[in-house]
Amino acid sequence: MSDGQTTKVSAGPVKTRTIQIPLPPGGFNLDCGQSLPELQIAYETYGTLSPKKDNAVFLCHALSGSAHVAGYHEPLDDTAPWWDNMVGPGKGIDTRFYYVVCANIIGGCRGTTGPSSVNPATKTPYGSLFPHISIGDMVSGHRLLLKELGIERLAAVIGGSMGGMQALEWIIRYPDMIDNCICIASAAGLSAQSLAFDIISRKAITSDPHWNGGDFYSTGNFPGSGLALARQIGHVTYLSQEMMETKFGREKTEAGSRFQVESYLEYQGGKFIKRFDANSYFHITSAIDQYHLSEKSGSLEKAFEPVRAKVLVVALSSDWLFPPSQSIDLANALLRAGKHVTYCELDAPHGHDSFLIDVGPLGEVIRAFLPWVRSLPAHEEESAKRKAANMELATTRTCPFCERRKDYAIITDMIRPGSRVLDLGCGNGELLRLLAAKRNISGIGVDIDVKHVIAVIDGGQDIFQGDIDHGLQAIPDNTFDCAILSETLQVVKKPQLVLREMLRVAKEGIVSFPNFGNWSHRLRLLCSGRMPKGGALPFEWYDTPNIHLFTLDDFIQLCREDHIRMLNTVCIPESNTSRALLGLGLRNLGADRILVRIMREPDKLAQKGNDDGKQGRQDTA
Amino acid sequence: MSDGQTTKVSAGPVKTRTIQIPLPPGGFNLDCGQSLPELQIAYETYGTLSPKKDNAVFLCHALSGSAHVAGYHEPLDDTAPWWDNMVGPGKGIDTRFYYVVCANIIGGCRGTTGPSSVNPATKTPYGSLFPHISIGDMVSGHRLLLKELGIERLAAVIGGSMGGMQALEWIIRYPDMIDNCICIASAAGLSAQSLAFDIISRKAITSDPHWNGGDFYSTGNFPGSGLALARQIGHVTYLSQEMMETKFGREKTEAGSRFQVESYLEYQGGKFIKRFDANSYFHITSAIDQYHLSEKSGSLEKAFEPVRAKVLVVALSSDWLFPPSQSIDLANALLRAGKHVTYCELDAPHGHDSFLIDVGPLGEVIRAFLPWVRSLPAHEEESAKRKAANMELATTRTCPFCERRKDYAIITDMIRPGSRVLDLGCGNGELLRLLAAKRNISGIGVDIDVKHVIAVIDGGQDIFQGDIDHGLQAIPDNTFDCAILSETLQVVKKPQLVLREMLRVAKEGIVSFPNFGNWSHRLRLLCSGRMPKGGALPFEWYDTPNIHLFTLDDFIQLCREDHIRMLNTVCIPESNTSRALLGLGLRNLGADRILVRIMREPDKLAQKGNDDGKQGRQDTA
Repeated sequence: MSDGQTTKVSAGPVKTRTIQIPLPPGGFNLDCGQSLPELQIAYETYGTLSPKKDNAVFLCHALSGSAHVAGYHEPLDDTAPWWDNMVGPGKGIDTRFYYVVCANIIGGCRGTTGPSSVNPATKTPYGSLFPHISIGDMVSGHRLLLKELGIERLAAVIGGSMGGMQALEWIIRYPDMIDNCICIASAAGLSAQSLAFDIISRKAITSDPHWNGGDFYSTGNFPGSGLALARQIGHVTYLSQEMMETKFGREKTEAGSRFQVESYLEYQGGKFIKRFDANSYFHITSAIDQYHLSEKSGSLEKAFEPVRAKVLVVALSSDWLFPPSQSIDLANALLRAGKHVTYCELDAPHGHDSFLIDVGPLGEVIRAFLPWVRSLPAHEEESAKRKAANMELATTRTCPFCERRKDYAIITDMIRPGSRVLDLGCGNGELLRLLAAKRNISGIGVDIDVKHVIAVIDGGQDIFQGDIDHGLQAIPDNTFDCAILSETLQVVKKPQLVLREMLRVAKEGIVSFPNFGNWSHRLRLLCSGRMPKGGALPFEWYDTPNIHLFTLDDFIQLCREDHIRMLNTVCIPESNTSRALLGLGLRNLGADRILVRIMREPDKLAQKGNDDGKQGRQDTA
Repeated sequence: MSDGQTTKVSAGPVKTRTIQIPLPPGGFNLDCGQSLPELQIAYETYGTLSPKKDNAVFLCHALSGSAHVAGYHEPLDDTAPWWDNMVGPGKGIDTRFYYVVCANIIGGCRGTTGPSSVNPATKTPYGSLFPHISIGDMVSGHRLLLKELGIERLAAVIGGSMGGMQALEWIIRYPDMIDNCICIASAAGLSAQSLAFDIISRKAITSDPHWNGGDFYSTGNFPGSGLALARQIGHVTYLSQEMMETKFGREKTEAGSRFQVESYLEYQGGKFIKRFDANSYFHITSAIDQYHLSEKSGSLEKAFEPVRAKVLVVALSSDWLFPPSQSIDLANALLRAGKHVTYCELDAPHGHDSFLIDVGPLGEVIRAFLPWVRSLPAHEEESAKRKAANMELATTRTCPFCERRKDYAIITDMIRPGSRVLDLGCGNGELLRLLAAKRNISGIGVDIDVKHVIAVIDGGQDIFQGDIDHGLQAIPDNTFDCAILSETLQVVKKPQLVLREMLRVAKEGIVSFPNFGNWSHRLRLLCSGRMPKGGALPFEWYDTPNIHLFTLDDFIQLCREDHIRMLNTVCIPESNTSRALLGLGLRNLGADRILVRIMREPDKLAQKGNDDGKQGRQDTA
């Protein structure tokens, strides 16, 4: 990562401010139909709003977070910043360039109106009278805050976990004011398992004899034992099994009688009840549980219809509270809805909390995705440098696949301007950028390597991080005009399936591959009795990624059997001998690399046979 | 599966009996140093003890189980049998042949002495005075029961989850009385995550205001709310995420206000507190948490030293409470300790409770593993039939790998009698049986297919179910005299690594593979320009499992580079032309298949060079 290039420093001293939101006579209307007569919001800001107001980034916090994202309070208090390693000068969300705003949510207990706030009607804390709140209510409240701050446009809205739910709600409720959205370790709705843990946690709170239906503020007692239990259950779900094993295993405390994990849980429970309100925990988890993006509109795809922002969906590999499959659902629905979406699954061993604990490449991914603040020349300069460095890095590491470049000019000519393209195994995104620049072709890449993902994002293209061998199922038929598989068919596990899939999701396909039928390979096997190595096949037999070798004629035969029509075949020679053989019309002998454009055989043409296939047969040497 | 051949019927009416165990004056000594003055044990039996008493099988129940395994009580009561689909005439544990015994554990609340039993010293329930119990105490108690029942020998001890811990404890404490052990979905000790859930569950119980330190029996109140919470947490951990999603998703109840998963959890909690004691839950989960097989002896391997039983370790793929990695640890430690062990990982989508809910092939695996009761001729006859059927099934499905058989005679001759052999990709175990029968060679197989696993178990051999590409790491150096890789090197992802691994775990290796340098393949590629197909390579290029093709000379070169010495090379022709070429000494042209015996190059010989390699080079055509 080019991460090391900039020195990261603390966001420094920061103040939590509170603001009384001016409300109409009816108060602040909630999704449940009730309203709040008053609304106070606590918020913090970092960095400076640019004169053009084009650099505002709003951060949405998760269940137990607050407005205090980074830096420190003066005098020091016990509020820990929740994303200090992500927000600050030189960090993933760089406060030298962005004006970052974060606010405590409605229903919370860190300065924004919540169940422990005084109810103006009774002059006592709301308690059991606090109305049901929704994720949408949190977002609407924060929208009013931004209005008060004079912010009408967001360069980005960013959130993880429940914060990711808010980020999605932002781009659906206020599509015209947001350019970019980053949704991390989140979902369109909780899984049954995560619902179950929340339900049990709330039951633990309401079973506490001090709960008193939520009206405990005046009793002098607090349902701390129930809230601690709830927090402890939560804590287990925030960490991966692997991380707990590494961190605690079956180790005992020094005293010897208790497991370390027991002492950890007790510490976490005890710490939490000092800073959190049981009613807030009850209401916020209820809001999370009820959040269900596709419920109203019938499908996720429809729910995303209003979205105008570019969206980055990030999943964490070991997250079991918001498993990657749920992030994939989000990304696929955005794709189906025709939106600009990038999906990235980070290798994060620490579970759901990885995005807070161990940022890893997440900072790089976010930094690459966030837009250049063009009104700040220093940012444009730094971004351009970083972009170049990332591209360089991704190129250096792709070794033989760089050879793809020879195909690029030919591929670019094959695709109609204005097409929508899927580039399978897109590497650092060079082809996608070429297509965009030269032919006005909008594309999306698929690649498994996070370095490639960062480079593609940095280049401004969309990408889905994933394995082609099981990556296309969720893409609907005919989503693209053309799918490209450049120097990749021979490395996939199921070439036939991949070909079928690419011609299902796209009207046409372009495939390039090394021709095992080339004279040099035949000669080597014939004369030396060794597996061919060199040229288009640079690896030893035992460590080659090329696990399905085949010749042009093999490919032609497969196309015939699978009712695939070959529209163009371009044979690329890499030596004079190859060139001479091609000159004699001996394609299967002469071609070192092949590039073909294919489509499904239209039903009406199926009986006519495949001309290209016949021609290929004549060439057989 | 041949499962359908026998009609499965209910175990029928059964009675729970209780017995007062005669104790010495000091009472029943517990691992904690305290003792129980009286010990009553509740048990049930199924089937008939054979005159030779060689058919007794003891079942160990899990946390919330009881003596009531199968069948029904008369008159009907609300005790549900916990393994009715596994135990009965025609079922996995066939009560027509086995005499099955199951007993409630010490500390329980279903008829065996536990915290709710009357303490003879106080004439009131033990409550807080009940001593700490261990998994070992449960086993010692049951050993006394068997003595009373006149059973001195067990054909098998079987248990799942906490029952698996007891089963392991049985074969360590009483090695001489047990022939076979089946340990399902269990571990040598809980993971940190599972510990955490138990700790939180007990905290929920002790936080209940009715708990009263455990002395609630006379108060008229019961800590039901805490116990229900504990059970609900448990229930989530018993099911897989996938299963909860399928079963409940985000569905609401008919009334519409609650999630179905909420109503399910409430039902489970409510049902449980009617039949279970909070003190028993507290004590049994504590015993599970404290169980740590390797703690005393320093290593699992040492803990297993006394074991004389054959052990079958079964893991369930989606179990996250006792994840498969923990079962693999058990199996590997048994292997390192030189015990007879078979490991099997069943594809079980329902999580930890799969072994109770959806038995699937588990019944077949258990049935294959359990010994023939030779004193019951009907059993011997049925077992022989089933064995033949399973072998047939496993053979039919292995298609091209059946070709291996041509090698078997040669391989058998290559291995010294009395050797210990590892057969990688062992198929239905035919070679292992041949080696055992003809050369007194004891072996263990590795295969990924459950049908093969059942066939190998049925044939009386040991097998590790797993993927060779990541299966050997846990086997220590030089565990075997010889490792066999018959027609498998070309299908693995990392051939070089697999070769290195096999020569690390075994002193010698025997490898057979199709020779891509054979004249027929060369000719086909040369003349037709198509990938070779036929003979030793029967697949199309796009769906072949043979992902790393290579020639004899390629193999020789790899051996040279990797300091592997080739001890014998046998070339197998499959046509007259091949035979003729071999006659001319042209091995790389003539051999259709190759069989080589290899070993690591001893350091002192490393400089002398590799004779066999040189000879191979001369043959190059």
